[in-house]
Amino acid sequence: MSSTTGQVIKCKAAVAWEAGKPLVIEEVEVAPPQANEVRMRILFTALCHTDVYFWEAKGQTPLFPRIFGHEAGGIVESVGEGVTELKPGDHVLPCFTGECGDCHHCKSEESNMCDLLRINTERGVMLNDGKTRFSKNGQPIYHFVGTSTFSEYTVVHVGCVAKINPAAPLDKVCVLSCGISTGMGATLNVAKPKKGQSVAVFGLGAVGLAACEGARMAGASRIIGIDLHSGRFEEAKKFGVTEFVNPKDHDKPVQKVIAEMTDGGVDRAVECTGSIQAMISAFECVHDGWGVAVLVGVPNKDDSFQTHPMNFLNERTLKGTFFGNYKPRTDIPSVVEKYMNKELELEKFITHSVPFSEINKAFDYMLKGHSIRCIIRMDA
Amino acid sequence: MSSTTGQVIKCKAAVAWEAGKPLVIEEVEVAPPQANEVRMRILFTALCHTDVYFWEAKGQTPLFPRIFGHEAGGIVESVGEGVTELKPGDHVLPCFTGECGDCHHCKSEESNMCDLLRINTERGVMLNDGKTRFSKNGQPIYHFVGTSTFSEYTVVHVGCVAKINPAAPLDKVCVLSCGISTGMGATLNVAKPKKGQSVAVFGLGAVGLAACEGARMAGASRIIGIDLHSGRFEEAKKFGVTEFVNPKDHDKPVQKVIAEMTDGGVDRAVECTGSIQAMISAFECVHDGWGVAVLVGVPNKDDSFQTHPMNFLNERTLKGTFFGNYKPRTDIPSVVEKYMNKELELEKFITHSVPFSEINKAFDYMLKGHSIRCIIRMDA
Repeated sequence: MSSTTGQVIKCKAAVAWEAGKPLVIEEVEVAPPQANEVRMRILFTALCHTDVYFWEAKGQTPLFPRIFGHEAGGIVESVGEGVTELKPGDHVLPCFTGECGDCHHCKSEESNMCDLLRINTERGVMLNDGKTRFSKNGQPIYHFVGTSTFSEYTVVHVGCVAKINPAAPLDKVCVLSCGISTGMGATLNVAKPKKGQSVAVFGLGAVGLAACEGARMAGASRIIGIDLHSGRFEEAKKFGVTEFVNPKDHDKPVQKVIAEMTDGGVDRAVECTGSIQAMISAFECVHDGWGVAVLVGVPNKDDSFQTHPMNFLNERTLKGTFFGNYKPRTDIPSVVEKYMNKELELEKFITHSVPFSEINKAFDYMLKGHSIRCIIRMDA
Repeated sequence: MSSTTGQVIKCKAAVAWEAGKPLVIEEVEVAPPQANEVRMRILFTALCHTDVYFWEAKGQTPLFPRIFGHEAGGIVESVGEGVTELKPGDHVLPCFTGECGDCHHCKSEESNMCDLLRINTERGVMLNDGKTRFSKNGQPIYHFVGTSTFSEYTVVHVGCVAKINPAAPLDKVCVLSCGISTGMGATLNVAKPKKGQSVAVFGLGAVGLAACEGARMAGASRIIGIDLHSGRFEEAKKFGVTEFVNPKDHDKPVQKVIAEMTDGGVDRAVECTGSIQAMISAFECVHDGWGVAVLVGVPNKDDSFQTHPMNFLNERTLKGTFFGNYKPRTDIPSVVEKYMNKELELEKFITHSVPFSEINKAFDYMLKGHSIRCIIRMDA
């Protein structure tokens, strides 16, 4: 038991006081974990586009002040009542979604959409008492997706904590908390290309590149990257992309371009942009008879997916996935092992690194499209 | 070798001279099979809605005179050059779609949509020479989907002929040529409910009832039938249907009614009507996390399938199927065995039987909605 157990911890956190304004490093108070909660020290956190989206808060009901951050690696400091599977010192990845272990989804082999702990971007408090564990001078500071990793210490529901191999370098595997697992899992767990098959990936951001990495790991023979920025092709080659299509370079729908390149369509497609047009193209570019398309990117509220139903009748499949169909506690430890076994390459996703004091630089890199992942070093 | 081998056979056939006009039993000439063709004697044929649809020929380019019929059982009379897997006397089911064995689809474990022999409702001739094998007084009579089983003898491409157990009663298993296999296969091969899961079936015609039968065979705990005709529920109970929903009885979308009945949605849904609204409902009524919907019914040319993409992102799957994903030559013999093993019950599908001379009665039964399947006895 550490000396801080049961005590309020004072530490540094990057607080978002207002939408779209630079984060401010503040000294905050972090309350002890309550029942089924875990308090952990964050060593490394990365910035994901979802943080930026809710920090910008365009068209949203704003919830500030808030501590963002959800891709991270840390070490358990103390655990609340009822937590038996974790102890101080365990190496962990906090997750933006969870696995209660008891609901229909957790009991299903097919679902990872836990009823209790499914991502909730609007809730800024802990489930146990509906309150925050963060405060500054008595003012509550809201949580973000139950993780709030832009803080030296944070409190997370035990169902959102994956216990991982302590030999795994946290400055690398921290990126498995969200985007990389999402993209890779979409390919490996949902699209499931067979060795030698062709895979099209729409969108070559971090999630799309992770989908490409999944295709490379599965032994795909052709990986066709589709993006509106042709400059991304060069970088994408590191992730196994063999061919590139920029829809802007063609005067016909990109699904037709891909069908012509592949004798009728690709075997698998993974959509990682969230653009409704890309979703339709991803579905319509798969081969009849066996093609499977997987939607990953999050659409707009008013989007409508539209296609001719014969595209289904001709034996195409369309599926969606959430967090790559990984269950956080059950499956993420084995994803870390894939990295340890050198099956999965993580270094190429990590393009930048900044000390915690310069966290706003990570936002700049992402907004300018310069970074895939920027690691924020909490102890620096 | 029979005495008719290599000879033109004169026999009776029910000829459709014009769209929508009663068939006329005529003496026709049936030419010998050419390379890769099989001439067979038809003993029993059933009437399927597809025959009626193309006989009515509404909004179609008419192709007459024509011999309809595609659900049938027969015995090989003679085979053309290159046919090695069949010989005179073999018991067979002709199929409206085929399996060449050589194309990408035939070589794929996942597809049954043969490039060479996939259903073609517009072609009225044989592939070998682009001509018909039927004629009357020198006038060619067109084929229908390569089978034309409303004739005592017909010629079929070898790739469209399933060789079955000679002990199987042809007056029963003839219905496995099309509709029953289509519905049952949609459930067993594509929706794949697990034992104890719930299945919704949209449309309780022959194909829908076969989908219910598949769900019963799979051990579904609840089979919810959806149809606009409430009178169909009573009959449907024989096929395992446990609950019935008539969308007309509710003032909210049927997918909501089903979600409320099933704590969030059914595990599997099979759409057998071809109505675009039913397709959307079938998809939206499956449970998030693991639900799978399968489209079977053929849509209209101008239909558009529309849904919010979040319905996919929440881990629902939408698939389409053709002929229940069965490969005619490879798989249909094993479906016959399911009947022989009493796993599949066929008798309850066969509600009527008429002699060949009264074939037009079978059309009446179907048009009035009285029959599931009417068997036409060729030798009577």
